[in-house]
Amino acid sequence: MAPTKTPAFAPRGSKADIEAGLAFAPKFDADGLIPAIVTDAGSGEALMFAFMNAEALALTIETGIVHFWSRSRAALWKKGAESGNVLNVVEMRTDCDQDVLWLRVAVDGDGRACHTGRRSCFYRLVPVPGDAGAATRLALAPDAGDAT
Amino acid sequence: MAPTKTPAFAPRGSKADIEAGLAFAPKFDADGLIPAIVTDAGSGEALMFAFMNAEALALTIETGIVHFWSRSRAALWKKGAESGNVLNVVEMRTDCDQDVLWLRVAVDGDGRACHTGRRSCFYRLVPVPGDAGAATRLALAPDAGDAT
Repeated sequence: MAPTKTPAFAPRGSKADIEAGLAFAPKFDADGLIPAIVTDAGSGEALMFAFMNAEALALTIETGIVHFWSRSRAALWKKGAESGNVLNVVEMRTDCDQDVLWLRVAVDGDGRACHTGRRSCFYRLVPVPGDAGAATRLALAPDAGDAT
Repeated sequence: MAPTKTPAFAPRGSKADIEAGLAFAPKFDADGLIPAIVTDAGSGEALMFAFMNAEALALTIETGIVHFWSRSRAALWKKGAESGNVLNVVEMRTDCDQDVLWLRVAVDGDGRACHTGRRSCFYRLVPVPGDAGAATRLALAPDAGDAT
């Protein structure tokens, strides 16, 4: 399924083109990456956040399976390739500036999107309003579930 | 409400501290920023995505009102200060690596979180599966609403 070369998306164009147009002109940062928000298509819960390069984005669009670029491993990363918790795209959107992606997904396998074994990476609350700074203490979310 | 100086959050600690601990040790990138995902606390819809510096994060925690750092204006940015569409924090979470924030909010005013006047910045769909590359065409989402 891998493309033979990294695809080029549309050029960025004017502000009006980017905000109101229908040409997909994603903005990749200086490292060639675009941030991707992943939420559960059923519950709306945020599951994880990662980055795609142009190849990962193209593979995601072509296959409907979420691919990222792993910054730590400097490698293409098919999420769930090892754990079985593959992310199936239910819907993908981009924002006004076309510099962020939002993916609503259905998680395969046992539904654990976080590498800690939890359903979601967002298992801890930051108390608000509260005291900010070194004294800020997190709280485990009631829906955190267990790590594996 | 502004703190007299930029607060220091907890030091990052070990991987176990960061992932399993309850000390809030947010990771700011080389530019001093941490990404923040904003979703509607009611609908779960992604509304916008922006960055906070330590001061914006501290103000958000202390006031319960979302503040960002505007990269384009290089200034602290109280979202909605001009439009009236202030974002009230219903819940804030951080992720396993403590390098992303997720804020569930209630939007004041006429509920338009996007500078285009729409409820959400994510008003366009990327068709998946589809052909990736310069030919990719977006589609206006059925729930996009009107720009102002």
